Amino acid sequence: MPNPTAAMLVIGDEILSGRTRDANMHYLAGELTKHGITLAEVRIVADDHEAIVGAVQALSAGHGTVFTSGGIGPTHDDITAEAVADAFAVPIGIRDDARALLQAHYERQGTEINDARLRMARIPDGATLIDNPVSVAPGFTLHNVHVMAGVPAVFRAMVASVLPGLTGGAPLLSQSLRIPRGEGDIAGPLAALAQANPQVEIGSYPFIQDGIFGANIVVRSSDGAAVDMVIGELAALFPEAQ
Amino acid sequence: MPNPTAAMLVIGDEILSGRTRDANMHYLAGELTKHGITLAEVRIVADDHEAIVGAVQALSAGHGTVFTSGGIGPTHDDITAEAVADAFAVPIGIRDDARALLQAHYERQGTEINDARLRMARIPDGATLIDNPVSVAPGFTLHNVHVMAGVPAVFRAMVASVLPGLTGGAPLLSQSLRIPRGEGDIAGPLAALAQANPQVEIGSYPFIQDGIFGANIVVRSSDGAAVDMVIGELAALFPEAQ
Repeated sequence: MPNPTAAMLVIGDEILSGRTRDANMHYLAGELTKHGITLAEVRIVADDHEAIVGAVQALSAGHGTVFTSGGIGPTHDDITAEAVADAFAVPIGIRDDARALLQAHYERQGTEINDARLRMARIPDGATLIDNPVSVAPGFTLHNVHVMAGVPAVFRAMVASVLPGLTGGAPLLSQSLRIPRGEGDIAGPLAALAQANPQVEIGSYPFIQDGIFGANIVVRSSDGAAVDMVIGELAALFPEAQ
Repeated sequence: MPNPTAAMLVIGDEILSGRTRDANMHYLAGELTKHGITLAEVRIVADDHEAIVGAVQALSAGHGTVFTSGGIGPTHDDITAEAVADAFAVPIGIRDDARALLQAHYERQGTEINDARLRMARIPDGATLIDNPVSVAPGFTLHNVHVMAGVPAVFRAMVASVLPGLTGGAPLLSQSLRIPRGEGDIAGPLAALAQANPQVEIGSYPFIQDGIFGANIVVRSSDGAAVDMVIGELAALFPEAQ
């Protein structure tokens, strides 16, 4: 049986403008792979209500699980929670359990809980909260969508809360060989090897380094022995591989 | 008039598995911003025919220009050109001008042009070629979709070929202030500032560093004087900002 699939939605003007690089996607991709869940698609959209609603609806319908990153803080540009509620046509409002979490936190700090901070207690009807051990303001899960913060430390903590509850398949194992020859030389034998071994996926990722054309060949499968065998055949075909 | 919009489609199993980090998206985002084109959406899909076809169709219909990255090499997992042809329901085959470019290149190198290398001359009917000064195998433009290589050096060279031909708007200018206070403290005054200055976009990007909660506030507009003014007001509101 193929592994379950997931998708990720990154809400981030700052990534689309080139100002910052996304860090959460790479982290989530690695964690899902270890957990035996295939990350099948990622979308990055701007802080725009319609764009978020459309992406949540499409990804939720197309994949087993969806993770979102960003836009759940207290500022005017944090519009993810409202958009996710709208995507599922459910009301959203300040919820007592989320408000209590925030109130207890700010009381301990001696900080007042103002209107902006209360925005972080806005949770769509029917959602369950995702624990935030870093900065308290919770994420939430609505249907198959896990809505999480964009700050990497918080995102990671929320992934750690959510992942154990998801059904994964066998972890995907991979090995790679670096072949210092142009893909045009490698492609023929590689295609024959891929055809003879449908139990593994073989990917070729070309590089150019110091004027040398080469490719990293990655062999992936949940069957470790099959990966070993194909890597062995590959190494025999291309003795110059590293 | 708002700036024209673009979208990007990254074809990349290796990014979705967490094996590598995408580099092209960040580069393209920065180049488009300089050129006055708004990158509105990015999608990353696997090396899967249906997934590529669907994403090309959706992004091409939804945005002025689409850039794709990856999957146009000679190996069995390079399926982007076929998928883009299918997305627009046009035939694809080896084209004489593309073959001639490759033939001349491999003759100069003393390398034979085999079947795998000839795959890189497969161009959808009606497409125009995109020059590849790095490794010769061309990209192509079909309708509003620019199909480019995934190897960063080649991707960048192709962006440099394509960008001057696109109509950009006024470059988006931005300035930022780093405020070492939690977003909950900043949010109220920031929302008021955003409402009073609709000619700029104000984004708040929280961070946690050494236990300090803070936010980078970014002010963006094609009107540099407006950015200066709002940054000045922001600095007056938050004297601790850097």
